[in-house]
Amino acid sequence: MDDVQATLQFFMEADQLKGVERRNWLADGSRRENTAEHSWHLGIAAMIFAGFATEPVDVGRAVCMALVHDIVEIDAGDTFAYDTSEAADTKRAREVAAADRLFGLLPPEMGNHFRELWDEYEAGDTPEARYVMAVDRVAPMLLNLAEGGSAWREYGITRSRVVDRNGRHVQPALPEVWAVALQRLNEAASAGTVDPA
Amino acid sequence: MDDVQATLQFFMEADQLKGVERRNWLADGSRRENTAEHSWHLGIAAMIFAGFATEPVDVGRAVCMALVHDIVEIDAGDTFAYDTSEAADTKRAREVAAADRLFGLLPPEMGNHFRELWDEYEAGDTPEARYVMAVDRVAPMLLNLAEGGSAWREYGITRSRVVDRNGRHVQPALPEVWAVALQRLNEAASAGTVDPA
Repeated sequence: MDDVQATLQFFMEADQLKGVERRNWLADGSRRENTAEHSWHLGIAAMIFAGFATEPVDVGRAVCMALVHDIVEIDAGDTFAYDTSEAADTKRAREVAAADRLFGLLPPEMGNHFRELWDEYEAGDTPEARYVMAVDRVAPMLLNLAEGGSAWREYGITRSRVVDRNGRHVQPALPEVWAVALQRLNEAASAGTVDPA
Repeated sequence: MDDVQATLQFFMEADQLKGVERRNWLADGSRRENTAEHSWHLGIAAMIFAGFATEPVDVGRAVCMALVHDIVEIDAGDTFAYDTSEAADTKRAREVAAADRLFGLLPPEMGNHFRELWDEYEAGDTPEARYVMAVDRVAPMLLNLAEGGSAWREYGITRSRVVDRNGRHVQPALPEVWAVALQRLNEAASAGTVDPA
């Protein structure tokens, strides 16, 4: 029963991810996205993009990785993808401490499973980790484009920074998805809703 | 490339699940929960509760089912779990129409996969469907108890209705989790935050 209590404590702690605010907006522009709903959207994306992946992936494992990989933000907060400040420098240390505390709440076997998924994502050297990374880069890009690019304008993110940051992950893993995302980005840059620089 | 465009259309459509409001509140009482973040929390719960399940379950499949099963609410809206009005009577028809439209946006193979997961959950006659149903019943119960029972008081839901609605799904699938949830419910009823009737 101690394992049940520990599992329920983690379950309740996880609820706080719904209160972690990201920089990007929902597609309808009504409010910014939170990390819990973002993680759900990534899980769905990991399912529906699987047929376009260049490497064979274990979809169930990729979906679980997508759901788990941002839980550390409960303690560490969301670090903006394009952040170049001190926050980006300290991100790794803050997130490791968060992983230690949060996954440490779970019974050891399950805590180790979550930690393995998180470590694997962070290391980025398995097909599933590369795939989830690509999904995690293209999903906010698509959302920002659908919404009209507010978050990028707000933080001065240009077309070339979007390409630099995302293309190297998305293009090798999901080339057809990247082609469409890049086309939409170029259209937005032509239309002036994204800074074409 | 048509399949990519169809997949991206579904991905953007799915974003609307973040705007579907449920009746229950986040554990900290700050606002009501939306269905996208609820679905993420269920996916996590399907991972961490697996060791307590009475039937062997394919966790990857259960997690995917948890992520998919409420997407129909984009069109059909959330029907309150304890609703006994006309909304409950028409729920099935509204949700079938929603499944037809929403999963029909995907390329056929992926659309069929989503539909199979949704149909399997609705039919409730596989180990994974019974397990996800149990997780989907106990998660909001735990959240309501942690928050202090506001949603139940608001809608006049008594202790016995919580037991009637949830126990028959949770107890057989997750008996140890149910025991703790029931204990917390009884404590809340004794303390008067849940109507003890």
